[in-house]
Amino acid sequence: MPKLRVHNLSMSLDGYAAGPHQDAENPLGVGGERLHEWAFATRTARAMHGLEGGESGLDDRFIGQGDVGVGATIMGRNMFGPVRGVWGTDEWTGWWGDNPPYHHPVFVLTHHPRRPVAMAGGTTFYFVSDGPESALEQAVEAAGGLDVRIGGGASTVRQYLRAGLIDEMHVAIVPILLGGGERLLDDLDGGADGYQCVEFVSSPAVAHARFVRTLT
Amino acid sequence: MPKLRVHNLSMSLDGYAAGPHQDAENPLGVGGERLHEWAFATRTARAMHGLEGGESGLDDRFIGQGDVGVGATIMGRNMFGPVRGVWGTDEWTGWWGDNPPYHHPVFVLTHHPRRPVAMAGGTTFYFVSDGPESALEQAVEAAGGLDVRIGGGASTVRQYLRAGLIDEMHVAIVPILLGGGERLLDDLDGGADGYQCVEFVSSPAVAHARFVRTLT
Repeated sequence: MPKLRVHNLSMSLDGYAAGPHQDAENPLGVGGERLHEWAFATRTARAMHGLEGGESGLDDRFIGQGDVGVGATIMGRNMFGPVRGVWGTDEWTGWWGDNPPYHHPVFVLTHHPRRPVAMAGGTTFYFVSDGPESALEQAVEAAGGLDVRIGGGASTVRQYLRAGLIDEMHVAIVPILLGGGERLLDDLDGGADGYQCVEFVSSPAVAHARFVRTLT
Repeated sequence: MPKLRVHNLSMSLDGYAAGPHQDAENPLGVGGERLHEWAFATRTARAMHGLEGGESGLDDRFIGQGDVGVGATIMGRNMFGPVRGVWGTDEWTGWWGDNPPYHHPVFVLTHHPRRPVAMAGGTTFYFVSDGPESALEQAVEAAGGLDVRIGGGASTVRQYLRAGLIDEMHVAIVPILLGGGERLLDDLDGGADGYQCVEFVSSPAVAHARFVRTLT
């Protein structure tokens, strides 16, 4: 059975996946970029941006694992871009340039329909306006037997957690205090039940906790 | 200058320092005892209970450090006991038996005055009904130049964090999801500003993050 997986979801020690005051200028909230420094320091992430060098140990292994066996991605609209409301002109095609690092179908949750956008390198963005279950069905179909990954952000992950649909989740705990922002693991309404930590290791920069769902 | 310190404050990955539905039968909330299994497995904690053996590595080092250089403890009333409202008969003298593991003055925050209770082994419980600043003043005085430790629980730590009074804080992140309960690092109202992580290491059971306040 294909799995629904979450990887490299960075969270501050006080539980925030984004800092306070998220807007177009601060898409990760104030201070939120500090949550991702560990990831950008890895060899794998640097290579994605055409850079050499980088950390090649534990953190790099986790970054690399996030893509293995994944055939489709689901993400929330806020992760796709800062545009709110109707799409208007179809100019915005994501934060990732012409050749996004997905290389497979990506399903963007939105209340506003939009035609698919095919990018270079095999990534096509599909816009799903009939709910997260529909997005999951379409993603599973598109993945062709491979797993589906939830790319983020926090509210999208929470939505699938609450629905009990996530099979495997990797959270990266960054030892900073943001003092406010968007909570990752909150308001789960029983959705956290049945998960067991199967791996817990840390680098100097981040503690990695990997959970699998044992209740079905 | 004596410091105000917090040690071995266990928190679930989803940010709870106690499980849901705290009451006299579940003083740590449902599932909350899982937060403390790592501590009770250490050699130092076992020795406090007259038991031999136990973990003698990283976790044990952190448990041991919590008492070094500490001359007085402050704790919330809920950590002292399950009694609510006025004290009534003075029977309740804490969870720790005749010889509590403090061996110095302990200041219990309460809205209801009560005479001090001297226990065996040097522990005396003082009941402070005129607020946390007063408790801190009394504890600093009683510590005679040594540091003051906040024993807990979560709401007491939050109170001093919000007031910007904590100099050093060690949080132990336990890789479990409690799904609800009492949040440790929440509603801090700017109180998290100015803390920097100076140590971040993990055992298979727990990740230890030690923060110091760099703003004054």
